[in-house]
Amino acid sequence: MARHVRFHKTGGPEVLQIDEVPTPEPKAGEVRISVRALGLNRAESMYRSGRYVIEPTFPATMGYEASGVIDAVGPEVSGLAVGDSVAVIPAFMFDQYGLYGDLVIAPARAVVKNPAGVSYEAAAATWMPFTTAWGALIDLANLGKGDFVVLSAASSSVGLAAMQIAASVGATPIAITRNGEKTDALRQAGFAHILQTGLDDITAEIMRITGGAGARVVFDPVGGPDFENIVKATSKDAIVFIYGALSRDATPVPVLHVLGKHTTIRGYEFIEVTADDEKLARAKTFISEGLSAGKFSPQIARVFPFDEIVEATRFLESNAQFGKIVVRL
Amino acid sequence: MARHVRFHKTGGPEVLQIDEVPTPEPKAGEVRISVRALGLNRAESMYRSGRYVIEPTFPATMGYEASGVIDAVGPEVSGLAVGDSVAVIPAFMFDQYGLYGDLVIAPARAVVKNPAGVSYEAAAATWMPFTTAWGALIDLANLGKGDFVVLSAASSSVGLAAMQIAASVGATPIAITRNGEKTDALRQAGFAHILQTGLDDITAEIMRITGGAGARVVFDPVGGPDFENIVKATSKDAIVFIYGALSRDATPVPVLHVLGKHTTIRGYEFIEVTADDEKLARAKTFISEGLSAGKFSPQIARVFPFDEIVEATRFLESNAQFGKIVVRL
Repeated sequence: MARHVRFHKTGGPEVLQIDEVPTPEPKAGEVRISVRALGLNRAESMYRSGRYVIEPTFPATMGYEASGVIDAVGPEVSGLAVGDSVAVIPAFMFDQYGLYGDLVIAPARAVVKNPAGVSYEAAAATWMPFTTAWGALIDLANLGKGDFVVLSAASSSVGLAAMQIAASVGATPIAITRNGEKTDALRQAGFAHILQTGLDDITAEIMRITGGAGARVVFDPVGGPDFENIVKATSKDAIVFIYGALSRDATPVPVLHVLGKHTTIRGYEFIEVTADDEKLARAKTFISEGLSAGKFSPQIARVFPFDEIVEATRFLESNAQFGKIVVRL
Repeated sequence: MARHVRFHKTGGPEVLQIDEVPTPEPKAGEVRISVRALGLNRAESMYRSGRYVIEPTFPATMGYEASGVIDAVGPEVSGLAVGDSVAVIPAFMFDQYGLYGDLVIAPARAVVKNPAGVSYEAAAATWMPFTTAWGALIDLANLGKGDFVVLSAASSSVGLAAMQIAASVGATPIAITRNGEKTDALRQAGFAHILQTGLDDITAEIMRITGGAGARVVFDPVGGPDFENIVKATSKDAIVFIYGALSRDATPVPVLHVLGKHTTIRGYEFIEVTADDEKLARAKTFISEGLSAGKFSPQIARVFPFDEIVEATRFLESNAQFGKIVVRL
């Protein structure tokens, strides 16, 4: 038997429960993983509470970030074997696979071997944030030496991954946070430039930091009224990624700036990487190399035991964390 | 002597006057043109009234669309000769050259030979609108067969040029107009699909016309509150060009749509073509071929004599015209 976190109705974190289920068997193109660590994601909270792009069918499971050891290999799988230490990249939807459990099935194409020396907790905290940041900053924006990149929601796991990716290619990240209490943690995490919305003049400060040139790349999951102030501080031919919609306020475009600077504003989702075999392969290589070299080290906010999945989820939804929440099995 | 339209202070159309000036001599890389027709542009009104990106130095002249016959050729000019029938592409600023006159200087790189059978009036009405539309629709968006393209401000000279360019590559243009009185003229000009803001449900109508797929390209010089409704009717991986700022209202981004559909919103100016020799050469070829083949035929609203430059400018600023206002010499 296996133990899976499931929910039988939509609701708050308390609807999650650990159910005994038959041990699942891998089919063609699949592996079974003995999970050692899970990474929690906001999409899971949205799915559980009925506010996601797909609706759960009950009983439902979910989860798309995990690491562990391959326990069984289905037909038509190459390059992976029982005993391999691996992580799972979120390259599927919750209605296809769910990783919240001790013995779970994952599609082989979403599985990547863990580099030596990387803990299960770190491996489970790596692939959603680093793949998300890679697809925008490296694959689409070709971020490199001398570039400035503005990271809104810098204290999110994606923001922190983006910082490390930017630094690894010689670019300078500029953090924006809405929460003054996270400033110290951002500095400790490695940011040299940290701006706080509501306190700093965002446009003026970015222009100052960039020596008057403006930032060439913006990576923003917030939108809302601050968006305009950030975009106004971009350089000619800049690219501004919108990868989330955290603000519920209108997101106005500074039309005259966008017009005169030939700005590109681009909606972006990490599925653009995970649905594309060639991009996914390049992301795996880039991120694995960064992990091996010690350049990438995902920020872990807190590690909860598996039995405290409800508490871990509550902490996720508190927005008090700094980095990834991990559940250890 | 030559006769140039000049102004000695900023103001309304009435500050324009025809002054006798010494006949200008072409320097290296320049030609002198005996002008037969001028195309008027809104940028000229903004410059004359002191609301443009550059300030006039008095006495000032201006104008960047004209056609005529080459009258003198400066040093270091190849491929152009006295007697050539030519048009000028707006590839310079008003403080560098001004074409509002009977004998004027133009930079050779901005000069293109008129195809046989194209009138001076048509040639003077072609290059700003067709170059503007080409740079976005063909060069950046790679518009082609099966695509739908939404043209806001469809009755502008750029909108009408965009319609002809779209049709020439097998795409379907959808007109949006803010003025119900222009609907009949748009239909006569060739639009099969015409929507009116404030009357039609723009999002629903575009979705209906595109069979539920949405438009892949939007070419919008307006912005403002309608922008959101247009963007919501775009397909996956659509590109939305902002090439003007006619609306003075805020221009909100529909963030959830942009995020889920990976929409690109791109500020665009025709200087992206005219400042780039390679792009300019391709634009010249594409547009000259379309003119020769009779596929492109700029809409001319009305032709005024040179002595009525003030009246012609007043008509430009009335916004009552349909197509280009031309001044004949």
